[in-house]
Amino acid sequence: MNRPSQEVLAARAALSRLVEPSDAVGQALVAAVGPERAAGIAAGREPARAAARRGVASLLEDNGFRGSGQALTEALERWRPRAASLAPERDLATVSRFRGTMLVPEDDLWPQALHELGLGMPFCLWTRGNAAIPPAGKCVAVVGSRDATAYGLAVTGELSAGLVLRGRTVVSGGAYGIDAQAHRSALAAAGTNGPDAGEPVRTPTIAVLAGGIDRFYPAGNEDLLRAVADRGLILSEVPPGSAPTRWRFLQRNRLIATLSAATIVVEARWRSGALNTAHHAAGLGRGVGAVPGPVHSANSAGCHRLLRDGSAVCVSDAAEVLELADPFGAGLAENSSGNVLPGQNQPVRADHDDLAVEDILLLDALPLRSGSPVEKLAMVAGLGIPAVRAGLARLELEGLARCSGSGLWRRAGR
Amino acid sequence: MNRPSQEVLAARAALSRLVEPSDAVGQALVAAVGPERAAGIAAGREPARAAARRGVASLLEDNGFRGSGQALTEALERWRPRAASLAPERDLATVSRFRGTMLVPEDDLWPQALHELGLGMPFCLWTRGNAAIPPAGKCVAVVGSRDATAYGLAVTGELSAGLVLRGRTVVSGGAYGIDAQAHRSALAAAGTNGPDAGEPVRTPTIAVLAGGIDRFYPAGNEDLLRAVADRGLILSEVPPGSAPTRWRFLQRNRLIATLSAATIVVEARWRSGALNTAHHAAGLGRGVGAVPGPVHSANSAGCHRLLRDGSAVCVSDAAEVLELADPFGAGLAENSSGNVLPGQNQPVRADHDDLAVEDILLLDALPLRSGSPVEKLAMVAGLGIPAVRAGLARLELEGLARCSGSGLWRRAGR
Repeated sequence: MNRPSQEVLAARAALSRLVEPSDAVGQALVAAVGPERAAGIAAGREPARAAARRGVASLLEDNGFRGSGQALTEALERWRPRAASLAPERDLATVSRFRGTMLVPEDDLWPQALHELGLGMPFCLWTRGNAAIPPAGKCVAVVGSRDATAYGLAVTGELSAGLVLRGRTVVSGGAYGIDAQAHRSALAAAGTNGPDAGEPVRTPTIAVLAGGIDRFYPAGNEDLLRAVADRGLILSEVPPGSAPTRWRFLQRNRLIATLSAATIVVEARWRSGALNTAHHAAGLGRGVGAVPGPVHSANSAGCHRLLRDGSAVCVSDAAEVLELADPFGAGLAENSSGNVLPGQNQPVRADHDDLAVEDILLLDALPLRSGSPVEKLAMVAGLGIPAVRAGLARLELEGLARCSGSGLWRRAGR
Repeated sequence: MNRPSQEVLAARAALSRLVEPSDAVGQALVAAVGPERAAGIAAGREPARAAARRGVASLLEDNGFRGSGQALTEALERWRPRAASLAPERDLATVSRFRGTMLVPEDDLWPQALHELGLGMPFCLWTRGNAAIPPAGKCVAVVGSRDATAYGLAVTGELSAGLVLRGRTVVSGGAYGIDAQAHRSALAAAGTNGPDAGEPVRTPTIAVLAGGIDRFYPAGNEDLLRAVADRGLILSEVPPGSAPTRWRFLQRNRLIATLSAATIVVEARWRSGALNTAHHAAGLGRGVGAVPGPVHSANSAGCHRLLRDGSAVCVSDAAEVLELADPFGAGLAENSSGNVLPGQNQPVRADHDDLAVEDILLLDALPLRSGSPVEKLAMVAGLGIPAVRAGLARLELEGLARCSGSGLWRRAGR
């Protein structure tokens, strides 16, 4: 296994301290001059030469940002105030003390899905727990309101447990409400072998935090997050000690979405951070699912909004979530609610309309008790005599019509 | 006002007795030789000449049916058994006795929307009540399960009353459950002037029956259907005395969908006739809405199925229904749940993310109580000093930041 040099680790640790998440200039600088020189320049220990400035400007432009020769100069001004408090080795020691590690893109274990973020990719991931992050195809994000209802918590429990039992990892944000229930139910389901999972899931759940991995936030979830760190994984792109600010919450949401094949919003108010996660997922072409609920519930208004504007697919159970996360996989086989698979846009059939038109007319005409002769059936059904005879033969084969000895016909069961 | 001749009325009355709904050969025959000769041929009183056969075959082919020279011969065999019991004048007398009338396409009052059915158009409409059928743009179908839940009934009541108060006519099928509640709530809301309806709705509700208008089916809805006939309208394409067969129920659904700008399914099981109505509406390019509900409710499974396969838009209230029924109309102005209109696919914003990135970073850095100097804010926010000064000025204008006399900054309310 390739492990990056200590210098690269320290450089990326420093960058994650100096530069806020999703600051494209920082990633452009790394791409232009490599992480070690980038960290030196960002910290003000090395000069930013013209070549670096031009490299950054052109990378920004190539990636659809407004790139200019001034971009790096302006960024250095943003980054400089934090340079004095840099201590990457101390941060790396801290994370070790928590039985954690720091993953970097130079690492074999780096989640490949994060490359899809382009210049929005994190410099590194600070982790705590089992650092084997499953590939995005095996992860599903389950997110939602902090102030969840009993309904939302129940559905979250069913979905998360169902996903873990089918060999998936549940990714969420460690917040109160839906997030906490998602982690809790995933942990509870882990260890149980699912019907189609060959072996127990190694990482049943991942909590992606907006602050440092050394401070469990919110405090009320401390025990839960400790259990996630013990039996699953906690990760963050900001270094130990970092506060979970509003900006970091919003950026954290992009990591939840990117690490997962699909993002499911169980409950969300009209304005909710969970919708932000859903839109990150949609932007990356990932599946987005929303759980419907009563229209009078303010906690479902955000889900209905996603359904209404076409941003999300309606999902009701773990099997439907899997179809979204893995549209060509095993999920399809698990549909048990009817013959027609959802999402295939086949016409929905009402009872008996798999019969030909004439047979429905004839079935309508057949009496339930006393029998009718063929001639009367022809009149009642509005069919010719030969058509009635042919139809009766078909219905009899289907078990829908029965003839008495005297040539009188009546309905049979179904 | 043009009223058709007595001969045309009698011919169409006879055709509606002889020919089952949606029998394209019957409509092709009317189109080929006119209603009077068509009735004569269908009843076996006139020979079907080669020209008529060729005309029918070519019309069927033009309309995408499998047309053949034999189509009319086969149809005549279907229709003949009923010819003996024909008595169109008696049927017309019956409907008059019920203070009803029979509308035909030759009539000025014929709903123009029905022409969209092509060869599936009814021969006539037997009506009872106020025969002024509003244009489809003013009608919304509200349909659903017979075995509705308290939730479904409550939502149906809100939607129907809301639609009538906004000047719309609620179309449904007169069945138990959702249909009955739709009619009942529409009648209750009628007479009350809505906020944007200039005058009370003339026809608050229309019940489209699968059987004859002289027999109220189901029997338990007799009082309700009588009230609909008194203050709204009841209609059917089959003549008085006709039984509501399964085939006629399915075909009746196409009339509900065609007469309405949108069809809303409030509650439906996985297999439900209401889904059939929804698919008729979709096939005609009409709006289709589904009301979400708890995922554990079997009565919402059909609605979620429509949402999931993309056949329906998620609707939660009457204003959202109106957007569907009238996408460029007044409905849009009534959205009160947020700034972004649903259905417009704009990115959903979380709180405060209407601010620029730097301002969110700065807002995060501002302490709630004791103030911070600009230099400290720069470090905490990861911004340069000039950017902090500019950002503080913007946040102060927005009422989000406040400066004490001593140059210390803190958060202000929102």
